[in-house]
Amino acid sequence: MTADTPGSSDAARLITDPGCQQMVGYRTEVFAGEGRAVVSLDMDPRHCNRHGILHGGMAATLLDVACGQAAAGYFDPSDPPPVVTVSLNLSYVASAQSGTRIAEGTVVGGGRSILHARGELRDDTGRILASATGVFRRLGRR
Amino acid sequence: MTADTPGSSDAARLITDPGCQQMVGYRTEVFAGEGRAVVSLDMDPRHCNRHGILHGGMAATLLDVACGQAAAGYFDPSDPPPVVTVSLNLSYVASAQSGTRIAEGTVVGGGRSILHARGELRDDTGRILASATGVFRRLGRR
Amino acid sequence: MTADTPGSSDAARLITDPGCQQMVGYRTEVFAGEGRAVVSLDMDPRHCNRHGILHGGMAATLLDVACGQAAAGYFDPSDPPPVVTVSLNLSYVASAQSGTRIAEGTVVGGGRSILHARGELRDDTGRILASATGVFRRLGRR
Amino acid sequence: MTADTPGSSDAARLITDPGCQQMVGYRTEVFAGEGRAVVSLDMDPRHCNRHGILHGGMAATLLDVACGQAAAGYFDPSDPPPVVTVSLNLSYVASAQSGTRIAEGTVVGGGRSILHARGELRDDTGRILASATGVFRRLGRR
Repeated sequence: MTADTPGSSDAARLITDPGCQQMVGYRTEVFAGEGRAVVSLDMDPRHCNRHGILHGGMAATLLDVACGQAAAGYFDPSDPPPVVTVSLNLSYVASAQSGTRIAEGTVVGGGRSILHARGELRDDTGRILASATGVFRRLGRR
Repeated sequence: MTADTPGSSDAARLITDPGCQQMVGYRTEVFAGEGRAVVSLDMDPRHCNRHGILHGGMAATLLDVACGQAAAGYFDPSDPPPVVTVSLNLSYVASAQSGTRIAEGTVVGGGRSILHARGELRDDTGRILASATGVFRRLGRR
Repeated sequence: MTADTPGSSDAARLITDPGCQQMVGYRTEVFAGEGRAVVSLDMDPRHCNRHGILHGGMAATLLDVACGQAAAGYFDPSDPPPVVTVSLNLSYVASAQSGTRIAEGTVVGGGRSILHARGELRDDTGRILASATGVFRRLGRR
Repeated sequence: MTADTPGSSDAARLITDPGCQQMVGYRTEVFAGEGRAVVSLDMDPRHCNRHGILHGGMAATLLDVACGQAAAGYFDPSDPPPVVTVSLNLSYVASAQSGTRIAEGTVVGGGRSILHARGELRDDTGRILASATGVFRRLGRR
């Protein structure tokens, strides 16, 4: 399994993006056939706010990617189309100071051009730290 | 005016945080007496997604900081308390590919421990790119 | 000006719906050319929760209609298409116990099939009680 | 089991409110010990919009009550305190034209004065029609 290779629809596919993914340092796995994606981050001080906890914007970044990639895979498992975020709602439930963060996004429903997805961000013990709901739109059919 | 110096309530105060602010590279000005804050970012490829536009998570970061700092300043202009984000809702209205991004947060209302704030993210021509609403909670009185 | 008559794009048009509008008793005016709509309600005990204040669901109803009708008018001022709500975010800022409630919705931006709108609910003194942001989708072109 | 009788924490308790509940006609069951509540509605034309489907505001009403009552029961199962909605986010996933609607709310997490809850609205076949996330605040301790 190599990065960004369209794979079979029931296996994880690693996504490697330039830009933000490289700066923040998260890892993205897409389970396209399931409409699901997992984004993980090994937290370090660069990701924290002044209180030493994960910055709300970093949590948003992980959940946006997890939900958006889940939607892309759901639209077309064999050839995920480009997708943009229409709206994203974040609930910050708890905080934790170090370790790995895992965001999982899944598709809830929708139609051919718009999908609703939801996500949860957890620490490495499985405790929920934040949740998200979002609307994602498929860009022009290809 | 120096960073993080409690200033008079009617002037801008620059906030310098470690961690996420340094990694992303935004600049934060707080107008505490007005319950308002402005966060600006000179966009470069590190802030972009695979489509070459500002990553949704970066827009969320700027709007979270703008709204949260507006809330902190509103709670106590002379000594802004620590504030955490309870929830944040993002609407992605338009995209643009380069230049400066300016997020402005203002307080809408609320009480002694919880405030509602809203924010807009614009490009350097003033066009709205994203908007946000959020709930912010003051941490223990000091 | 009569109910549901397609009017000129710069004047208010009254909307009369069956069902929910009749049960709740609100009044809807659409300023289609401006992408704006105003919904008003004379509060009485039927609209309240157990604490004697406007039920959160009633506030949501007024803001949903105001934002959705603003979107419909914006899509086509001369012949507003049917529109469905994709998502709606509500912030409850303050409460008040009686009088008239006025929800105003305006379009923030978007494209040919999806629009972002925002709304504010105020009492008859102009004080903000709740705000909303929402995503609205145009149903099949006609 | 009678209406509004504080019951044991592991059984359903029926809630009967004046005002909005009577007008709309929903039924509320609270499973306080589980931080869970179920609101059901037998849909009829009064609950519909002009397209003959459940009005977005009615879906919001059912989900607001389900999430809010779940939160109240979670704060104190033996004596649920009054609770107000701070914010409520609604995702409209699908529509359906008649039958019973069931909204279920559950608590996701939070602290002593603020809780995060989520809810799903389903038709009588279990299909998801809408989902919600919300922030709820406990009014003054009693």
